[in-house]
Amino acid sequence: MPREITAYSNPLIKRVRALREKRHRREEGLFLAEGLRILTEARESGRLPEYLFFARDSAGHPLVRALIADVETAGGEAIETVPDILSKLSGKDNPQAVVGVFAEFATSLETLDRHSAAIWLVAERLRDPGNLGTILRTGDAVGAGGLILVGECVDPFSVEAVRASMGALFTVPIVQAGWAEFLPWLRAGPGQLVGLSLDTDQDYRAATYHAPTFLLTGNEAQGMPAEYAAECDLLVKIPMLGKADSLNAAVATAVMAYEVLAQAKPSPR
Amino acid sequence: MPREITAYSNPLIKRVRALREKRHRREEGLFLAEGLRILTEARESGRLPEYLFFARDSAGHPLVRALIADVETAGGEAIETVPDILSKLSGKDNPQAVVGVFAEFATSLETLDRHSAAIWLVAERLRDPGNLGTILRTGDAVGAGGLILVGECVDPFSVEAVRASMGALFTVPIVQAGWAEFLPWLRAGPGQLVGLSLDTDQDYRAATYHAPTFLLTGNEAQGMPAEYAAECDLLVKIPMLGKADSLNAAVATAVMAYEVLAQAKPSPR
Repeated sequence: MPREITAYSNPLIKRVRALREKRHRREEGLFLAEGLRILTEARESGRLPEYLFFARDSAGHPLVRALIADVETAGGEAIETVPDILSKLSGKDNPQAVVGVFAEFATSLETLDRHSAAIWLVAERLRDPGNLGTILRTGDAVGAGGLILVGECVDPFSVEAVRASMGALFTVPIVQAGWAEFLPWLRAGPGQLVGLSLDTDQDYRAATYHAPTFLLTGNEAQGMPAEYAAECDLLVKIPMLGKADSLNAAVATAVMAYEVLAQAKPSPR
Repeated sequence: MPREITAYSNPLIKRVRALREKRHRREEGLFLAEGLRILTEARESGRLPEYLFFARDSAGHPLVRALIADVETAGGEAIETVPDILSKLSGKDNPQAVVGVFAEFATSLETLDRHSAAIWLVAERLRDPGNLGTILRTGDAVGAGGLILVGECVDPFSVEAVRASMGALFTVPIVQAGWAEFLPWLRAGPGQLVGLSLDTDQDYRAATYHAPTFLLTGNEAQGMPAEYAAECDLLVKIPMLGKADSLNAAVATAVMAYEVLAQAKPSPR
């Protein structure tokens, strides 16, 4: 039987709320994910929250019932609560029906099988959590093998990143690695490193991609360092016809990834 | 000579801060834009702020000096202030060097010349200001003729939308129109209405686009209403190889827009 929490002052509520801050996530090894769609994606990917908070009103929903049952079977705790507390946990005025507290997880470079996918995404010093989540969501859509975060990137377990990923956080493997660790791993096997750059005349659609392709996107404001660009097998640019000199990082990654996908799997015409 | 404001309690500071809320923007007909890059884009597009706030430290920067001079020549006011007040105006811990208060502007359907561009973006009930700004930024990059916002969309003059547009708010015409107004206007001349949909087998890369192409993106959560889809000349889908059933709206718009652009201007191979 789920227990019920209706008081803001409950210590567990305070602890869960604190997971909105990176420092507390690191201390606890836990993170927040909200919403029935994302939690169901997690469940279908074999990840269940350690704590599941749900609104009384939503307890009858078949997907909420399934979540509660699976969480309790797995030894987690399902906790009935009120909309105000769900709002407080999610930091949104319109609370989600469910909020889950998950154990953080990590994938290492060594466990990646580069032959398992034609496309791999690599982001370097990505700063915006919305961009990170959106890139994960795109990675899921193009069948990317994973997202490799190089250097000081924003935390993939931040509330904003998890939200923007729409569940892809649970389906797309994420590796955090330094450049000095990534590059030797990459060069130890086949793999075309393709960098998005403003300093090339090579149009992204006129280039030829070879699987496995590793698409490298640089920092939102500065792009990638020159020494990273020098290591790329191919630098490509996306045409910019207007006044601005760059696209949003998640948009640029997606335009590139869909071009690579189209070359990998030509569409019927 | 610029005047100086260093007190939070200054009535102008309070008034400008209030522009973070839509209600106050509508009452005043004013909105906020921040950052030297965006304000310089605005200036180069012929739009100057009515009030320009700048940090003392940055007054020596050539682009800040140019902004101050142009604002004063145009009859606006340049106001020197302190970093804390700039933070307060922009709502960010790391304040931008400049914050501008601009008059809202509007473009009507009647003034659009559909023959002036191969691509036009149409968004329906777009809810997320970051998506709106990112779509504007993409629109600038693909040389779109404008962004037509159909139905109840998020305010393009919100701080988040302006920020995500990276200045494209000032370079890409924005029209707000009802569907009942947009459709007759569209049908009064040439124009292929292309809808992004999950309910079609037509791959976006196997389809043929005819300029001027109007790319219709539906609401983030629900997509477009069936009656809008029924009016489209073409419905296309972007392949989704993963677990999720949709892309981020700004990402989907960009992937589509770059395909239309590639067909309009084949790249050298």
